[in-house]
Amino acid sequence: MAKLLECALNFSEGRREDVIQAIVAAAEGVRVLDVSSDKDHNRTVVTFVGSPETAPAAAVRITAKAVELIDMNVHRGAHPRMGAVDVIPFVPLGQATMDEAIAAARQVGRRLGEELGVPVYLYESAATRPERRNLADVRQGEYEGLPQKMAGPDWAPDFGPRQPHPTAGATAVGARIYLLAYNVNLGTPDVEIAKAIARAVRAKTGGLQNVKALGVLLHDRNQAQVTMNVVDPFRTPVYRVLELVRLEAARYGVPVVGTEIIGLVPLTLLLEAARYYLQLESFRDDQVLETRLFGAQP
Amino acid sequence: MAKLLECALNFSEGRREDVIQAIVAAAEGVRVLDVSSDKDHNRTVVTFVGSPETAPAAAVRITAKAVELIDMNVHRGAHPRMGAVDVIPFVPLGQATMDEAIAAARQVGRRLGEELGVPVYLYESAATRPERRNLADVRQGEYEGLPQKMAGPDWAPDFGPRQPHPTAGATAVGARIYLLAYNVNLGTPDVEIAKAIARAVRAKTGGLQNVKALGVLLHDRNQAQVTMNVVDPFRTPVYRVLELVRLEAARYGVPVVGTEIIGLVPLTLLLEAARYYLQLESFRDDQVLETRLFGAQP
Repeated sequence: MAKLLECALNFSEGRREDVIQAIVAAAEGVRVLDVSSDKDHNRTVVTFVGSPETAPAAAVRITAKAVELIDMNVHRGAHPRMGAVDVIPFVPLGQATMDEAIAAARQVGRRLGEELGVPVYLYESAATRPERRNLADVRQGEYEGLPQKMAGPDWAPDFGPRQPHPTAGATAVGARIYLLAYNVNLGTPDVEIAKAIARAVRAKTGGLQNVKALGVLLHDRNQAQVTMNVVDPFRTPVYRVLELVRLEAARYGVPVVGTEIIGLVPLTLLLEAARYYLQLESFRDDQVLETRLFGAQP
Repeated sequence: MAKLLECALNFSEGRREDVIQAIVAAAEGVRVLDVSSDKDHNRTVVTFVGSPETAPAAAVRITAKAVELIDMNVHRGAHPRMGAVDVIPFVPLGQATMDEAIAAARQVGRRLGEELGVPVYLYESAATRPERRNLADVRQGEYEGLPQKMAGPDWAPDFGPRQPHPTAGATAVGARIYLLAYNVNLGTPDVEIAKAIARAVRAKTGGLQNVKALGVLLHDRNQAQVTMNVVDPFRTPVYRVLELVRLEAARYGVPVVGTEIIGLVPLTLLLEAARYYLQLESFRDDQVLETRLFGAQP
């Protein structure tokens, strides 16, 4: 499998179709997987995948176009934001490492500062200080609060000028691991059982590392559900999560009736599940026919 | 996933490296996955994958080069054979159908007959008569027996002249389904238990449709093994085979200690196993990230 970086770039325009299209069209040399605009948020997320070389270059090109076409002084929207391009996270996939995602974030940050005059804060795994890891902390005060925030001693940007760009504000650029959203549906309408299972399996209350979990009721199905985020599914694989949920559900005599993976999932996570359940002794990723066909690309 | 045809073309040269390379080099427009030559058999299998358009064209080009470079009158080898290119099977993969594999076989057969003067017998799913389905029957008598066999009433070829090509003999061209070779290793050195399980799970003696099975002893590991071919793993999925072996092994108190998939396996078979064991309710193949990246190619 090739070295791949996924990038879910968030920019502050979700209403003017021509502007959205012009900005997305700037994504050259990468594969655009999805474009989702929200009119209430007045915000668009463009998700693309490229190599450690092409993905950062595409992020810079998209940002240049967004800086040209978006004026934050007239932007209104429900979602918190601080810039024309608000957030640029890089996620390592395939053979790419977190170090390569961090390098991509730094390269993009430097170019946004030097070439576009946009101040950049590095966040999550790319953060240069602990207090900048959390995106919500970095974005605190939003676009309108930037002049005052940046004038203080704690918020000098990692790259670029020490004041906001006059129309594009500031941008958060980061690196983070792939996150798996995984739900387990239970053969009971009793949400209290789902909540008890959630407490048993999540990291915060003594369960599995890397697992966040809540118990909810699916009204239309009249079924309780354990809804989870696995924040490092490469270390805490999905089969271990499911089987622990099953184990805890058994004490209430409740069966697992189905599960859901939300959105896209890297092949390697599904192969890990197949390896575990099929007890495969020495199965290699490149025994999957499709990896032979497509492995060297894009 | 794209429409793909796999072809494991067998030609009658396994010793002269320059000849082998020249023939394999004729495979244009397809992805060559593997080239395996055997000196005792004096035979090479080149495995490639292409579209329903490119795979047949490549098979014809390879055959033209083999007809040019191989003289069956001086060919000696341990493996049964009847032509310079002996067998051309097409296997549908991805979204390709068996009808498309059969169409590829017919197209290649027609072109070998018309353009190269090589008589062609269609076999397996492409066969035009029941007695030609089995490759061993078609090849009976081998190259040396062709003149007499073809002079008789029953062996008029499906395409091409009614006598063997003077140096290239005849070729069998067919279509068949992907076959899975799958072994289950048992926590016992007692081969009789493996044999009893094999009888229980195989189609011939009352087990699962599409499963062929034998019990053998792995001397170096001192473990008994159930070694299987699943001749239609799309209808009889690997999880069902494994769990039936496990069920039968349990009556002897014998655990499954590991399994092996031999060679390449289509992604969809592993996704089916993941769907079953993870109890996924509505997981689509295109939720696998890599299918988004590479799905439209080659």
